[in-house]
Amino acid sequence: MVFNYPDGRSFQNAPTPKDNQVTKEKQISQQSTSKRKTTETQPFTTTKGSASTVNFGNRGMRFEEAINESNTYYLTHKMAVVHKKPTPIQIVKVDYPRRSAAMIKEAYFKEASTTDYNGVYQGRYLDFEAKETKNKASFPFKNFHAHQITHMKACLEQGGLCFVLLWFSSLERCFFLDSRTLIAHWDQQKANGKKSLPLTTIEVEGIEITRKIAPRIPYLEAVDHYLKKEAL
Amino acid sequence: MVFNYPDGRSFQNAPTPKDNQVTKEKQISQQSTSKRKTTETQPFTTTKGSASTVNFGNRGMRFEEAINESNTYYLTHKMAVVHKKPTPIQIVKVDYPRRSAAMIKEAYFKEASTTDYNGVYQGRYLDFEAKETKNKASFPFKNFHAHQITHMKACLEQGGLCFVLLWFSSLERCFFLDSRTLIAHWDQQKANGKKSLPLTTIEVEGIEITRKIAPRIPYLEAVDHYLKKEAL
Repeated sequence: MVFNYPDGRSFQNAPTPKDNQVTKEKQISQQSTSKRKTTETQPFTTTKGSASTVNFGNRGMRFEEAINESNTYYLTHKMAVVHKKPTPIQIVKVDYPRRSAAMIKEAYFKEASTTDYNGVYQGRYLDFEAKETKNKASFPFKNFHAHQITHMKACLEQGGLCFVLLWFSSLERCFFLDSRTLIAHWDQQKANGKKSLPLTTIEVEGIEITRKIAPRIPYLEAVDHYLKKEAL
Repeated sequence: MVFNYPDGRSFQNAPTPKDNQVTKEKQISQQSTSKRKTTETQPFTTTKGSASTVNFGNRGMRFEEAINESNTYYLTHKMAVVHKKPTPIQIVKVDYPRRSAAMIKEAYFKEASTTDYNGVYQGRYLDFEAKETKNKASFPFKNFHAHQITHMKACLEQGGLCFVLLWFSSLERCFFLDSRTLIAHWDQQKANGKKSLPLTTIEVEGIEITRKIAPRIPYLEAVDHYLKKEAL
């Protein structure tokens, strides 16, 4: 599998700092959203030259990386404060090889009950999820989980500004779609049996985001556009 | 060390689900904020009868638990959507004993770059940190980290409503203190050499929160009170 950055450059393998400790266990290096530098060359998963080596957390990561960098840009430029939430983990065993460094020896991934991103933009509460598909004609509903929809509904009820960022990796096209519109289509699933949202619908009801150098995914422009549209 | 719940009940040791797998490694069980039931009897750390057994994440946890339950109450009653962010973890090794269950075999705690709690309340972005002290006369500034102060400043600049919840465990008193006031005192540290914020100051400049049955920490009442005060 070859992964491309949203700007089209292909993903380069690179060793992790712990490369000399590679065991038969699959290895994954997950870096901090907040601490990650805004360099575009820093990978955060290694495939070790084998397609089977990493099978968690890789899908969609290049898009996520671009959003994280955009968030750093917005933070640095005092335009918004948006962070990706850490992955929720159920910790079972912790070892203390040194006084200062606790090492987690057994833990499990948990399902998040919220969306991945939230923050504040000009007094408004922002809440969004970033999703990716290789499809070319539609966005599968299965990319969204019921609890994320529930969370978005709750945030909307409290007056939050909720949306999703949709990345069509094969087309290299990115869309903003407000959650109210998404939820309306999601709720129709059972009735009409559709399992995905057609690109043609997203083109009409969403807002396409043209990628830039910095921020790479200028989603706040789409937010502004959406707010203006809502105000009319 | 004895831990008390904010409501004064003392913390009871209780086995974790993995109790039969206890090794010499120190064990910690961290439960999901979101999935945790709103029962008051569910502990989420075990001390295994020894004061030295658990030395991570225990301090302040009873207070955190009360806040998490309050958040669940507010969510359920459609009053606000506030979640505690998961603890950020640096994952190094992941094993796949079964296809469906990835087991993290090596990971480390990372320092968070934001506060622990955020969410939306009546259209407003809420952002806060919960801190606890055993002191009786003042709240030590060392409980706050520079990056949390930086984060709160950034959120305030974006029009967010930022505050801290301070729990004096020995006194069993809880206070709301808005971040602007906290930061003003924090910034004076270097000038006046004070290492803590006197309780007498907090009594005047903060808002005391009287604990209830549900929600246990009714901090939204303090938020309302603060907003009214600000509007005058």
